[in-house]
Amino acid sequence: MSAKKWLYAFDEIEEAQRHVGGDWEAVRGLLGGKGANLADMTRLGIPVPPGFVITTEACNAYTDGGGQVPAGLWDQVMEALERLEEATGKRFGDPDRPLLVACRSGARFSMPGMMDTVLDIGLNDKVVEGMIAATGDERFVLDSYRRLLQMFGGVVLGVPDEAFESVLRSKRRARNVASDEELTAADWRDVISSFKSVISRRAGEPFPDEPFEQLKLATTAVFESWAGKRAHDYREAAGIAHDLGTAVNVVTMVFGNMGEGCATGVAMSRDATTGEDRLEGDYLLNAQGEDVVAGIRPTKRISQLESELPDAARQFAEIAKRLERHYRDMQDMEFTVERGKLWLLQTRTGKRTAQAAVRIAVDLADEGLISRQEAVLRVSPDQIDIFLHPQFAAAAIESAEPLTTGLNVSPGAAVGVAAFDPDLAERWASEGREVVLVRPDTKPDDVHGMLAAAGILTSSGGRTSHAALVARQFGKPAVVGASEIEIDLSARTLWVGRTQINEGDPISVDGTTGHVYQGRIETVDPDIDNPWLTTLLEWADEFRTLGVRANADDPVEAARARRYGAAGIGLCRTEHMFFAADRLPIMHAMITAPTSAERREAIADLLPLQRADFLGMFKVMDGLPVIIRLLDPPLHEFLPSFDELSERIADLRIRLLKASDLAQMDDLVDQMTATRRLRNRVEDLREANPMLGLRGVRLGLQIPDLIRMQTRAIVEAALEAKSEDIDVQPEIMVPLVSHATEMQAARALISDEMEEVFAERDDSIDHISIGTMIEVPRAALTAAEIAAHAEFFSFGTNDLTQTTMAISRDDAEAKFLLEYLADQLIDDNPFRTLDERGVGRLMALATDEGRATRPDLVVGICGEHGGEPASIALCQRLGLAYVSCSAYRVPVARLAAAHAALQADGG
Amino acid sequence: MSAKKWLYAFDEIEEAQRHVGGDWEAVRGLLGGKGANLADMTRLGIPVPPGFVITTEACNAYTDGGGQVPAGLWDQVMEALERLEEATGKRFGDPDRPLLVACRSGARFSMPGMMDTVLDIGLNDKVVEGMIAATGDERFVLDSYRRLLQMFGGVVLGVPDEAFESVLRSKRRARNVASDEELTAADWRDVISSFKSVISRRAGEPFPDEPFEQLKLATTAVFESWAGKRAHDYREAAGIAHDLGTAVNVVTMVFGNMGEGCATGVAMSRDATTGEDRLEGDYLLNAQGEDVVAGIRPTKRISQLESELPDAARQFAEIAKRLERHYRDMQDMEFTVERGKLWLLQTRTGKRTAQAAVRIAVDLADEGLISRQEAVLRVSPDQIDIFLHPQFAAAAIESAEPLTTGLNVSPGAAVGVAAFDPDLAERWASEGREVVLVRPDTKPDDVHGMLAAAGILTSSGGRTSHAALVARQFGKPAVVGASEIEIDLSARTLWVGRTQINEGDPISVDGTTGHVYQGRIETVDPDIDNPWLTTLLEWADEFRTLGVRANADDPVEAARARRYGAAGIGLCRTEHMFFAADRLPIMHAMITAPTSAERREAIADLLPLQRADFLGMFKVMDGLPVIIRLLDPPLHEFLPSFDELSERIADLRIRLLKASDLAQMDDLVDQMTATRRLRNRVEDLREANPMLGLRGVRLGLQIPDLIRMQTRAIVEAALEAKSEDIDVQPEIMVPLVSHATEMQAARALISDEMEEVFAERDDSIDHISIGTMIEVPRAALTAAEIAAHAEFFSFGTNDLTQTTMAISRDDAEAKFLLEYLADQLIDDNPFRTLDERGVGRLMALATDEGRATRPDLVVGICGEHGGEPASIALCQRLGLAYVSCSAYRVPVARLAAAHAALQADGG
Repeated sequence: MSAKKWLYAFDEIEEAQRHVGGDWEAVRGLLGGKGANLADMTRLGIPVPPGFVITTEACNAYTDGGGQVPAGLWDQVMEALERLEEATGKRFGDPDRPLLVACRSGARFSMPGMMDTVLDIGLNDKVVEGMIAATGDERFVLDSYRRLLQMFGGVVLGVPDEAFESVLRSKRRARNVASDEELTAADWRDVISSFKSVISRRAGEPFPDEPFEQLKLATTAVFESWAGKRAHDYREAAGIAHDLGTAVNVVTMVFGNMGEGCATGVAMSRDATTGEDRLEGDYLLNAQGEDVVAGIRPTKRISQLESELPDAARQFAEIAKRLERHYRDMQDMEFTVERGKLWLLQTRTGKRTAQAAVRIAVDLADEGLISRQEAVLRVSPDQIDIFLHPQFAAAAIESAEPLTTGLNVSPGAAVGVAAFDPDLAERWASEGREVVLVRPDTKPDDVHGMLAAAGILTSSGGRTSHAALVARQFGKPAVVGASEIEIDLSARTLWVGRTQINEGDPISVDGTTGHVYQGRIETVDPDIDNPWLTTLLEWADEFRTLGVRANADDPVEAARARRYGAAGIGLCRTEHMFFAADRLPIMHAMITAPTSAERREAIADLLPLQRADFLGMFKVMDGLPVIIRLLDPPLHEFLPSFDELSERIADLRIRLLKASDLAQMDDLVDQMTATRRLRNRVEDLREANPMLGLRGVRLGLQIPDLIRMQTRAIVEAALEAKSEDIDVQPEIMVPLVSHATEMQAARALISDEMEEVFAERDDSIDHISIGTMIEVPRAALTAAEIAAHAEFFSFGTNDLTQTTMAISRDDAEAKFLLEYLADQLIDDNPFRTLDERGVGRLMALATDEGRATRPDLVVGICGEHGGEPASIALCQRLGLAYVSCSAYRVPVARLAAAHAALQADGG
Repeated sequence: MSAKKWLYAFDEIEEAQRHVGGDWEAVRGLLGGKGANLADMTRLGIPVPPGFVITTEACNAYTDGGGQVPAGLWDQVMEALERLEEATGKRFGDPDRPLLVACRSGARFSMPGMMDTVLDIGLNDKVVEGMIAATGDERFVLDSYRRLLQMFGGVVLGVPDEAFESVLRSKRRARNVASDEELTAADWRDVISSFKSVISRRAGEPFPDEPFEQLKLATTAVFESWAGKRAHDYREAAGIAHDLGTAVNVVTMVFGNMGEGCATGVAMSRDATTGEDRLEGDYLLNAQGEDVVAGIRPTKRISQLESELPDAARQFAEIAKRLERHYRDMQDMEFTVERGKLWLLQTRTGKRTAQAAVRIAVDLADEGLISRQEAVLRVSPDQIDIFLHPQFAAAAIESAEPLTTGLNVSPGAAVGVAAFDPDLAERWASEGREVVLVRPDTKPDDVHGMLAAAGILTSSGGRTSHAALVARQFGKPAVVGASEIEIDLSARTLWVGRTQINEGDPISVDGTTGHVYQGRIETVDPDIDNPWLTTLLEWADEFRTLGVRANADDPVEAARARRYGAAGIGLCRTEHMFFAADRLPIMHAMITAPTSAERREAIADLLPLQRADFLGMFKVMDGLPVIIRLLDPPLHEFLPSFDELSERIADLRIRLLKASDLAQMDDLVDQMTATRRLRNRVEDLREANPMLGLRGVRLGLQIPDLIRMQTRAIVEAALEAKSEDIDVQPEIMVPLVSHATEMQAARALISDEMEEVFAERDDSIDHISIGTMIEVPRAALTAAEIAAHAEFFSFGTNDLTQTTMAISRDDAEAKFLLEYLADQLIDDNPFRTLDERGVGRLMALATDEGRATRPDLVVGICGEHGGEPASIALCQRLGLAYVSCSAYRVPVARLAAAHAALQADGG
């Protein structure tokens, strides 16, 4: 009986694949992500340093066996090493042509920093001397050796790193130098000697000279690390199963720092910033991989490699293209050139900016590498969102050095003067200054300042800190946890190293990247006309089944919505029209009218203004539907607040007390009387909970003349538009219906007025749909009845969420919802992402039961959730006809709707 | 082929019953209610004047035949008349022994005043003379004749009544008399002559002398009246089908005014006021039925009949008992004694007061006439409600003459000074005066005054007027539409005839009877200890399956609840304890605490007070469960209002301006600072919609010390009670949960504190249930999740109705809900009667899904609906375990729950 196969060489991927039954994911399960990838590249004939993978099965057998390596493992490792020696022409322990290997863990899912690695296995005193002779670089070889001792001592023998660091500190002190780079070869020999003593003393055994022994110990150490507390905690947090095990990659070491013809670098197969199809990256001649990242020496652009190592450069460019074709995506690669020979050390899907993501997806589809569906799925709606925020100009960022970098928790660019407290931020903002609120951290009391600020910067806190949560909720660009920043609140200043920024000094914050800049960085407007974005969104439109409309209250906004791809207006809030300066006095007159005749007169005065509003909308939306919602808010919203009027009265009292002149007194008394009267009216209208009060259809039925006036304005405007050859498609929406009888009564008024106008003008509009918002739980619960009187439903999910949860958004969001998010009492802010189990259930019920009554009922959503991807996916599952959101969110919604449709299709 | 049988004599009821298949309701359908009843009495051998019923089938055949009487009808009528002649020994048209009949319509359902009747058919000039000779009462016979002419002219020939009345007016004027009673026989002869001319002229044909012709015409006129507009409208309004048709009763006339041995009267088989088992009623010797009702002559008590007509009296008493046994209920009977011979003209179930209803039901059951179930079902919960309102003392009413009588739209007795406008009513009430608001009618703006008043009186409006609706909604005794009252608002006075009542004068209003009295009538407290009521409620308890608990916040209330039969406390609102004078300052300190240490200190100060509160409750409720709800309202409810503080600040500013003395100024500045600080805190806590804000479990989770303190107080009190041998059964209820996670978190805090107290005291309570209110739609929608952490649910239907409908009760009830009721947009006030389709649907869902998670979940209701009969019936259908309501409503709930259970049983 032959022993089970515990390892696979990189060129044995077919065998591994057969072992697990062919599925690539199962290969990753067996070999881990890194191992599977290296083996895959090997199969493609791409030069990868030879090596092999000890399987996760071996790790699990080790764990299950209580720390016994499974039988046959070391024999198989021995054989695999012999094949490595054959392939490389080097030998383990041979001072002349020494084989060195790295031993790295590699689980199925990436667990960055959580698992262990030992490099340069195979070095010992003898091999070191041989290598020094071969490379002529004594310092490099000795440095490698001390690193092996340090890593091996820590990972394998459990010697605390501090023990090694203290040796290094003593040496630097003794030699009076600041950094390890300044230590000489002789110094390193001392350090190596000390490290060996540390190991012997601390571990109770000496560092093993024998390379195979080193490898065996390193392998079992990696096995052990899987069960270690650090990895266990990580898996708990990330939701990774504990029984997957880790693979162990044993890879021949290659060196980019062996002199002539050596280089090392990292590169992307396309430009990660713009998405342009050209290699982008950095390299260093004669250097180690770490040096490129560390930035100790200035790196060179990858485009220069051609002139310095032309063969390697050409080969690398070819490989990059091949990998891209193979993995069907832009690749992020690490490479080393060892004496003219190119080695690929890693490839993985490259991170990219939103712009690059869009362009690469479109280009890959155009190149035939991926389908258009895949291209659409490759870009997340959040990336489109980034497009639609102002960003720093690329050129400006190129030349600017970030002051520091924190966590990029809420995308977008913000420029403003630093303000160190929320009250000041609010005051400056109210004076028209752009402000960045800078705080050590934020708490609920600071929210008013955060809302007033253009951006937010904190020196502490993580991705789920209060500041991060609030910023994301309100779409404010924010960088948090910028820990290099020291804020001195009493001195009203901040320090980053030696740079000082005082309150009132300008500062720029990039919530997309996490960078913070001193001074003002130029910003650019959202790049909506980007041709790749246009293409991608057109493709998205082909795949989506949900319509996308916009919420817009005036022709300018409607025009933007149309430009952004909205297929109609899902919500035009007529009350916003009444807040205009020329309307508000008429509204006041209407509300305070002492007689019903005077009220009717005021309402009549509003008619021509409303008619003009609607005509403007209809012209812009020629050929597309426009849903106009009848007046919704309570009347007191149009009047000054009770408090404001009380203040005025108090002031008048004092002025009256001080007055001496009779005429002035008369005037003051008149003012007092008028103000008191107005305050009485406000008092009459005051409600304990205006959200649940006299508004919407309730108000409309109480003042039927308002419904009639608005209907007349809509119909007259539509007829006028029609006479100008505009294809006008008005729909009338009744707000806040909770009882079918309300809808029935409102509909009767609307129809009656509509017929009246048609008769007067001897003309008509083909069909004007009359429908309702579903924004009250009872409306959803009795949708079957309401649908008898409504041709369409539009979920007003802002109000529906408020009433379903009994949460007043204005009050609750800052006061406890964010605490709930932080305490994980809720997963998402329900005012951003639809609450599927509560609100979503009502929506499902209303949709199904409404359609049971009226099979052609048109059901959409016009709450803010209509522009949020997860909510859009829910709307897709609920079978809605369309979503409607603010114009700026229309592109996001188009893409999210396509995702939802494709994911529903694909399962 | 024999013709269909179109009529049944009163003694042919078995035949009629066979014809329709035996069912009594079908007999009523065939013969109408009145006809069936007369036939039924005939079967019992009770003396009913002979007669027969022309069936509803005949009426329908007439209608369907386009106004043709069906073939064979007149022949059958002729035969039936012959039998009548035989039975009575009288003959149609025989001047010596004339047979007179009444022809009355009688449909299946009573349609009072809607259908037509013609009396005294069979009179003509010749017969009249014969009768005058026989009776010797010329005036009576002539008056009967002119009545026949007038009724026949109106009903049969369509002559407007005004034509007859104008003849009477001219005659009275000519004779210079005020009433018809003063006209002589000679006058009547003139009138009869004129009536005949009127008929000839107006109808184009003379009055038919021939009795059979009279009867035929009257019969078809009754048929026609069924399809007439008046009857049609009535059926529309009452929801009666139009195809039922009416029967026609032809009954021999009997006369109680034929001299010696004649009498007529009405009587109840038991006392309709007290329920006592004795005949109660009035009669007149030698009089017509109308005379008893009209009150022209003083009537005699029925008990006197024994001495005047002993045989008839004995026979009547026997018949009354028999009818009671037969119909198994107290009867309201009309009788006539014609020359010593007793005739029963009608019997029907008698109307009675609430007290009488209870006593009669219990007595009938004790007598074995009805079952206890029937007894329970015979009394409506509304009647129990009347018991529980203060009422006027019987003795006081006996001696008082009502000033006037209006519609009794909202039961109960109210005594107070008259106030003619709502502002004054409110002001006087705030000064501690009892007020009756008197208005011509009321409108929404008057509601504050109506709420402040003890009772309401209007001079106009009907049972669905604004005043009536509001009064019933708020349980205010009210009489509306008292049209004899003339209100002079400018003179601030009212007139009833010559009686004047000025504003501020005392007045008494009986909403149970509709009577209005001048001055103060003595009232008595609710008669809860009435022995029959006690018995009836004990029976109800046997039949009901729903538990009845009470909402009570202090031991006094709890004791009352227990006395009224509550089986526990379903809701103890702890916040009410914090409003007490000794607690409020501590609450202020807690809320305004500048540091968390000071807050904790204030909370600690509340502990002993709360503990004492709970101990008091536990003692009173020994052996019964007490559900204690943790703090619910938002904190600002415990502070003065923002407006109040603004007023104070404005006053302080003025006092400061006027101040001259330095010490005084310092003091004012201090006050100003403190008030400003308090106002800032109020401002912080202010919410746009406090109903949907930071309260309930949200507040509890933000200030966990509050939850802990309340839990500790409950547990410590329970342990103390236990040590005093009290069987203590506390349950802890968490308010305003919308997410299962909130319940989970609150439960963890409560359990933790509970265990801590148990450990400290080294003692424990067997089991303390922890549950939640279901008062937010989302809680109902996610009940399956919440039930995992809650052992009981209690529907808070006040808030659940508010959120499900998005209606703030405080704002909406007066502002538009009552208009909605008046406009029939809603059937019931949803804050009184549970909205089955909306709120009820959520309740059903929560109950079913909660129990799916936790089969032994205890589900109850503690909203005000818990004491309302229709809502209780819904709770029964939903399968709830108990209802909880205010102590005063407990008896109502006990009976309503029994009704619900019995009706559910009976289907």
